Amino acid sequence: PDDWSELDQKAVDTIRVLAADAVQKVGNGHPGTAMSLAPLAYELFQHTMRHDPSDPGWQGRDRFVLSCGHSSLTLYLQLFLAGYGLEMRDLEELRTWDSATPGHPEYSHTPGVEITTGPLGQGLASAVGMAMAARRERGLFDPDAPQGESPFDHFVYVICSDGDIEEGVTAEASSIAGRQQLGNLVVIYDDNHISIEDDTTVALSEDVVERYDAYGWHTQVVRGGENVVGIREALANAKAETGRPSFIALRTIIGYPAPEKMNTGAAHGAALGEPEVRSVKEILGFDPDKHFAIDDDVLAHARSVGQRGKAEHEAWDKQFADWAAANPERRALLERMARRQLPDGWHDKLPSWEVGGDPVATRKALQKILGEIGPELPELWGGSADLAESNNTTIKGADSFGPSTVSTNMWGQMSPYGRTLHFGVREHAMGSILNGIALHGGTRVYGGTFLIFSDYMRPAVRLAALMKLPTTYIWTHDSIGLGEDGPTHQPIEQLASLRAVPGLSIVRPADANETSAAVRAVLDNPTGPAGLALTRQNLPILEGTDADGVARGGYTLADASTGQPQLILIATGSEVQLAVEARKVFEDEGVPTRVVSMPCVEWFQAQDRSYTRHVIPPEVKARVSVEAAVSLTWHQFVGDDGECVSIEHFGASADYKTLFQQFGFTTQHVVEAGRRTLARAAEHNA
Amino acid sequence: PDDWSELDQKAVDTIRVLAADAVQKVGNGHPGTAMSLAPLAYELFQHTMRHDPSDPGWQGRDRFVLSCGHSSLTLYLQLFLAGYGLEMRDLEELRTWDSATPGHPEYSHTPGVEITTGPLGQGLASAVGMAMAARRERGLFDPDAPQGESPFDHFVYVICSDGDIEEGVTAEASSIAGRQQLGNLVVIYDDNHISIEDDTTVALSEDVVERYDAYGWHTQVVRGGENVVGIREALANAKAETGRPSFIALRTIIGYPAPEKMNTGAAHGAALGEPEVRSVKEILGFDPDKHFAIDDDVLAHARSVGQRGKAEHEAWDKQFADWAAANPERRALLERMARRQLPDGWHDKLPSWEVGGDPVATRKALQKILGEIGPELPELWGGSADLAESNNTTIKGADSFGPSTVSTNMWGQMSPYGRTLHFGVREHAMGSILNGIALHGGTRVYGGTFLIFSDYMRPAVRLAALMKLPTTYIWTHDSIGLGEDGPTHQPIEQLASLRAVPGLSIVRPADANETSAAVRAVLDNPTGPAGLALTRQNLPILEGTDADGVARGGYTLADASTGQPQLILIATGSEVQLAVEARKVFEDEGVPTRVVSMPCVEWFQAQDRSYTRHVIPPEVKARVSVEAAVSLTWHQFVGDDGECVSIEHFGASADYKTLFQQFGFTTQHVVEAGRRTLARAAEHNA
Repeated sequence: PDDWSELDQKAVDTIRVLAADAVQKVGNGHPGTAMSLAPLAYELFQHTMRHDPSDPGWQGRDRFVLSCGHSSLTLYLQLFLAGYGLEMRDLEELRTWDSATPGHPEYSHTPGVEITTGPLGQGLASAVGMAMAARRERGLFDPDAPQGESPFDHFVYVICSDGDIEEGVTAEASSIAGRQQLGNLVVIYDDNHISIEDDTTVALSEDVVERYDAYGWHTQVVRGGENVVGIREALANAKAETGRPSFIALRTIIGYPAPEKMNTGAAHGAALGEPEVRSVKEILGFDPDKHFAIDDDVLAHARSVGQRGKAEHEAWDKQFADWAAANPERRALLERMARRQLPDGWHDKLPSWEVGGDPVATRKALQKILGEIGPELPELWGGSADLAESNNTTIKGADSFGPSTVSTNMWGQMSPYGRTLHFGVREHAMGSILNGIALHGGTRVYGGTFLIFSDYMRPAVRLAALMKLPTTYIWTHDSIGLGEDGPTHQPIEQLASLRAVPGLSIVRPADANETSAAVRAVLDNPTGPAGLALTRQNLPILEGTDADGVARGGYTLADASTGQPQLILIATGSEVQLAVEARKVFEDEGVPTRVVSMPCVEWFQAQDRSYTRHVIPPEVKARVSVEAAVSLTWHQFVGDDGECVSIEHFGASADYKTLFQQFGFTTQHVVEAGRRTLARAAEHNA
Repeated sequence: PDDWSELDQKAVDTIRVLAADAVQKVGNGHPGTAMSLAPLAYELFQHTMRHDPSDPGWQGRDRFVLSCGHSSLTLYLQLFLAGYGLEMRDLEELRTWDSATPGHPEYSHTPGVEITTGPLGQGLASAVGMAMAARRERGLFDPDAPQGESPFDHFVYVICSDGDIEEGVTAEASSIAGRQQLGNLVVIYDDNHISIEDDTTVALSEDVVERYDAYGWHTQVVRGGENVVGIREALANAKAETGRPSFIALRTIIGYPAPEKMNTGAAHGAALGEPEVRSVKEILGFDPDKHFAIDDDVLAHARSVGQRGKAEHEAWDKQFADWAAANPERRALLERMARRQLPDGWHDKLPSWEVGGDPVATRKALQKILGEIGPELPELWGGSADLAESNNTTIKGADSFGPSTVSTNMWGQMSPYGRTLHFGVREHAMGSILNGIALHGGTRVYGGTFLIFSDYMRPAVRLAALMKLPTTYIWTHDSIGLGEDGPTHQPIEQLASLRAVPGLSIVRPADANETSAAVRAVLDNPTGPAGLALTRQNLPILEGTDADGVARGGYTLADASTGQPQLILIATGSEVQLAVEARKVFEDEGVPTRVVSMPCVEWFQAQDRSYTRHVIPPEVKARVSVEAAVSLTWHQFVGDDGECVSIEHFGASADYKTLFQQFGFTTQHVVEAGRRTLARAAEHNA
């Protein structure tokens, strides 16, 4: 372009050289894409995006997502050049212990990194969530402003790679983005035809652009990574297209201009080697004996973007101040949401159920809870992966989120600012989109499917845990208790395997009142993701449930009559009732027995030792766990003398009462297990 | 069509009535699609497919995959009509305990069911694997026969639904099918615009047919589920197109002709209700007071397909006999593979490494193993999800599986009968495709990716376990030991959470020799899926490894010098060396210490109690587990007095030596843990 100066070109070439240097120094990493995408990334950070390096959290900023996280240098080098606080020393420390430049970009670790990426497909899919969140937030704060004139209007830019394009989660999310007509989303596809197995043609022959056409996106093709004029024009077109998401296929040569390795898989994921690094420097007119060098004038030129960013920020501040003055209540909501603080007294809206009243499935309890708290918590929104009617995830009276041109019998007319999300049968994209929504702003979002299909979402759930995002999963049909759908739909190992994820809380309430308490605890603690495991089948309303006990993860629901238990029955969810029944049998026989309800193992383990030892005294060795799932979770709680009432094989298709009977989830079985552990404990004490 | 008789129409209408009856009786299920797809399914089973109801395992049969497994009646009713052994009583027992007609079709449970389906997307994706396996098997047995003239030529038919189309795994698999030009694959998409959340437009606005065009498929549109002429013509076109997979979008009205519920979500997943069932019967001219009724002449007419099938089978038998006579060696291979029996003496080809020799990463050991056994085991094939160079999954000298028109620098010219699979960055489809390959015939197939990305494959892995398929996963980079790529790539919870899957064996060898033994044990036991967890980093070649011990899952690698251990150190994979070092420290201090290597917990737990108690004597209470992963697996082994050396949080980006040091995987840490458990055990014995 006309305003592209020699300094700009030098900056771009410096990026290539620094990328080669950084990977060469640590000995491993991904130089190729950082080199070939240098002009695009530079153009984005220097000319296209609205951002202020001095304030990476500025609410009005455009978001940037590097979906191909392995090319972290693509981002780090822009953060360095633009002045986000990364300096040359940080680049020298690439991929080393405690550096600001880990192998893949890490959210809340490096200023300017909006999202942790690396597992392919997640970045693009989460960016769809960011674009959705931007629209929903605009709807909460500034719904009537004309398009482009609100302080809440901005763009989400994504760079993605062949790997992102191949992953199914992006296919799911891209279809959703098309349905949602996300005009604020711009994706640039680094179409370099190379991945680790070299020429992508061995696995990829589809017409990617045609596929994005089919999704309803605005598509463009730009030939040549060096083609800054074409890149700039395409980005301008993409921004101008506000009715559809934009897809720009940019044909690049990976590793350009490394003479031996460009356009090969060798440039993708390994250091180029010292001779090739030298060649790159020579070709670009740099001194091959210098490492990690940048000309002062180049750096100063690049960092001048900071002034432009500040000016944009100031202009936005004024726009924002005007809005705030005109919208004091919305401003208060915005500030409350920014703190992720819920309104005073919201607990009072949580429903409760009378002990001994009609049995209620915990998924049905959820429906009532959402209906009651929905009006109090405008930040709360969510939906389901085509199971709204089964998960009961719909807040009564809420609009569906979608183009207003769409209207259906069941959901009425959709609204671009709607509250009910429709993901289709796309659990994985749902998980990634929830991440993007949670990253984008202060809303509290949830997504529902059957617990078994948490398997489809795991990569996204793990990233939520890694980023400590307050996403909430509504996972209903939480055991063989779902009945007739059979083993393909019955979770067996899911509870244990989700509990294995560091930082993820799995909450399995025992009845409707515990469900209310679980929702309270989850929403009160926006420190990480949580999954609610809820039943399809009805459960009795139990005596002794306690909201504070639920928040502590586990508590004595029914104590031994003497206060000194000889036997402890630990149960979760629909099996707590069996423990309660078994306790009666033992108490009748004179065995003081305590029932511990443990809806959330993670919360329980986070309690002080004094509390956990109070609930499960170590000297009481006779212990039984009862959960309709694999026992893996429970060995640590029941100990050497203990017993697990569990299921260690796949389920079957029948009504749930038959299944519980056939698979040993009966009061009688719990009693027998109790007798065995009592006998063992007695033997040890003898 | 001209030959479509009144009896055919009556049969189709009977299907609708029986579907409504069956769901109504049990009170839940999915009637709608079984009703609207009746003509298509009937046409497939009565006219299109080559099959023999009297021999569901006939090798020459066309395969049928009901990807929308919830519509199991679509399949059950055809199996009933065609005479696969299902009778009216079975239909009456739909979705009940121990019936032949569970909620979703279950492989090896109901004759004629080729694959367990239900989790959406899996069926179509696995069908791609079946079509690939058909080609590979043809290449092994009859490579030179002209197209369509081999006894190994047949088709794979799939019915899929909106949900299948929305799931990302089908997007991945469909792109692969396009790349692979699978002319033997025919997919019919039930384009009914309805899913559980009613009108799919709330979540699906893409042009599905255009998307399949973009994948390189042959596409057709047929309007009307009743349009048998159009259906037949489209199926004929699809069969005639042998250079590309075929996609037929069939526009149907779900629940047709239920007057109130057709074309609504209510017809999808719930009983229609007695009045609506009556209406259906009246509309179709059936007696509304009769249930589970079929006219004798209708049934006889439908079952006459059995004679046609027998005749086709006989013709095929002759073709097969001619082939067998001309190809005695290939025939022997076919028979050996059908028994999943490996050739005598193949163990002799397994390489071994000298104790104390150069350290070797277990992923590198795998490469050598594959190179040695590859020539002996033609049934063995596989590849990677774009990580061949990292997973070392390529058998040296093998051709790549793909169209011969494709040639690349790294892989040379592809071959339609090739042995090296290229999945692209599509782990999920890889998992599903492996299932289809294993279901199709006697090959032994493996797929590789990083262990962390097993998360992307879980739904497919679970189905492999449920179906007991001998698929093998090569999961390298199995801990924080992968180093610089950081927390997004470092498995923490994956080992424990995969071990939680019933029927899945996770094998984590301690060195190159255990890797050889692990491959031996996995291939010798084709009774279910297995995952090999292999290191990126080099490991020393240990003294005391034992192939039979590996096959038993756990064994004494280094015993206490006295033969009577006071302390047991249990470790897996790269951490066994730490246990070995720690043992030396204890032995030097006079504490008799045993090291147990436990590469496969599942195999160990399957041993006799006498063996497991011999390896880990219950009276030795001082026990330490050492595994660079969450401790969840190990509580049951170390017991109340034990210690777990583990990592309960996400990893970090640095070289692996730093990470092991920082995260406490050192000899010193194991020794300290040993001292703690010894102290506790001593206290108990005091």
